[in-house]
Amino acid sequence: MTLDHLTALIKRKESMLCVGLDSDLALIPKHLLQYEDPIFEFNKQIIDATLDIAVAYKPNIAFYEAMGIRGWQSLEKTINYLNQHKDEAFTIADAKRGDIGNTSRMYAKAFFEWLDFDSITVAPYMGEDSVTPFLEHKDKWVILLGLTSNKGSKDFQFNVSDGMRLYEQVIKKAQTWGGPDRMMIVVGATHPQELKAIRKLAPDHFFLVPGVGAQGGDVAEICEAGLNRRGGLLINSARQIIFASSGTDFAEKAREMAIATREPMKKYLANL
Amino acid sequence: MTLDHLTALIKRKESMLCVGLDSDLALIPKHLLQYEDPIFEFNKQIIDATLDIAVAYKPNIAFYEAMGIRGWQSLEKTINYLNQHKDEAFTIADAKRGDIGNTSRMYAKAFFEWLDFDSITVAPYMGEDSVTPFLEHKDKWVILLGLTSNKGSKDFQFNVSDGMRLYEQVIKKAQTWGGPDRMMIVVGATHPQELKAIRKLAPDHFFLVPGVGAQGGDVAEICEAGLNRRGGLLINSARQIIFASSGTDFAEKAREMAIATREPMKKYLANL
Repeated sequence: MTLDHLTALIKRKESMLCVGLDSDLALIPKHLLQYEDPIFEFNKQIIDATLDIAVAYKPNIAFYEAMGIRGWQSLEKTINYLNQHKDEAFTIADAKRGDIGNTSRMYAKAFFEWLDFDSITVAPYMGEDSVTPFLEHKDKWVILLGLTSNKGSKDFQFNVSDGMRLYEQVIKKAQTWGGPDRMMIVVGATHPQELKAIRKLAPDHFFLVPGVGAQGGDVAEICEAGLNRRGGLLINSARQIIFASSGTDFAEKAREMAIATREPMKKYLANL
Repeated sequence: MTLDHLTALIKRKESMLCVGLDSDLALIPKHLLQYEDPIFEFNKQIIDATLDIAVAYKPNIAFYEAMGIRGWQSLEKTINYLNQHKDEAFTIADAKRGDIGNTSRMYAKAFFEWLDFDSITVAPYMGEDSVTPFLEHKDKWVILLGLTSNKGSKDFQFNVSDGMRLYEQVIKKAQTWGGPDRMMIVVGATHPQELKAIRKLAPDHFFLVPGVGAQGGDVAEICEAGLNRRGGLLINSARQIIFASSGTDFAEKAREMAIATREPMKKYLANL
């Protein structure tokens, strides 16, 4: 998907909502277990119920990988289903991959050829040649970890060298590896103060913002700090939306929660 | 596998050789393509030909993932085959995973329950709570990226803060997360000078050393710089061994190359 297409989606849907498909077999409604592929059925109903509200979907790859071959099959069906609505949502493989060049090239093949995602999350520790192979695929995006939402983000990401924190160095370099049309940055919703400063450092790039909902981030605060002239944010909520109900009304409740999560975004997007 | 068991293997085989199973369908001998699962057949023959020479095997997960469901099936068969010789080799899922706690827990489930590997490589960028969930599995190991072998290792890993480079900070903290019986560190063979200093920083931990062979690292130099009283090194070679020949003699040639790669290790291990 192109940057212009994504921007148009955001305007049309008045939304920067990304729905995280952290679909855990232990947490999905029990009545779905009768289906041949309960995880795919769950995802399909969540997607159907939220597709006019969300602009992006982000399967969390670990949750599929943990189920073995069956999990990969559910993921394959899920991305194929999303690609039946290719113009309606940006797709993110939340995989946190990254390795030496010839190996990153193989991961890119997995997520951009076998599974036709628009983008993949990548870890920056191994530097440029671990990241750029993903950009060899036309119209595919890298979403690089900048400042993450978890407690452990304090362990190394705030290390200061040459007057800049590590996450700032990553974000600065990332912009030389890929423009705003190919590269996004992960900035956790649990760091609203830093988000504002990061927006100055990377005015044109999109940020994928996890940590809303279960992890405690606030949507209006994120918009206030991180908006740019294209919206510039994909705000991810997973558990709070997809597990809003464990009953047969789960998709309906997910839709209500998606609408509620989008609500504070609307006024920021009205004047784009 | 326990630390004592691994140490005993190293002494018995006079070897710290790890064979990297970067098994690429485009590079394996053509006569294997007639098999139902060419990649598994290739791995099986490589393992059979080198099991008395190597102490560890390291499938590079990207190469399997890139082949889709079939690739995961080849990987599943490969680890199951290795586990038929469970006492004979330490197994490494070279996956470079790592995410927030609940997600790392899912990756651990994938590689330690579905696929019963002894260890997994993990990226440190997200800090403690992205790493320690892997240690919740008894007798399973984390192999944390310290200083990697690729060019991009220069981008962030040498950043100095509080008088220490980033990779030194990672290696220092890693030791508080897991003892030498559960935690190893990746130190690229392309940095022999730094390896010597890293051995002082982490005297008791094993290092997984990639970058020998195709990437240019020298085995004797690595032993000189990194040996400890248990050996303390797993020296990985992939392409140079597994693709030593593209003919029907590939396994035999792989064995010869494995023996040649082990040769310089022997004198260092004689006096353990």
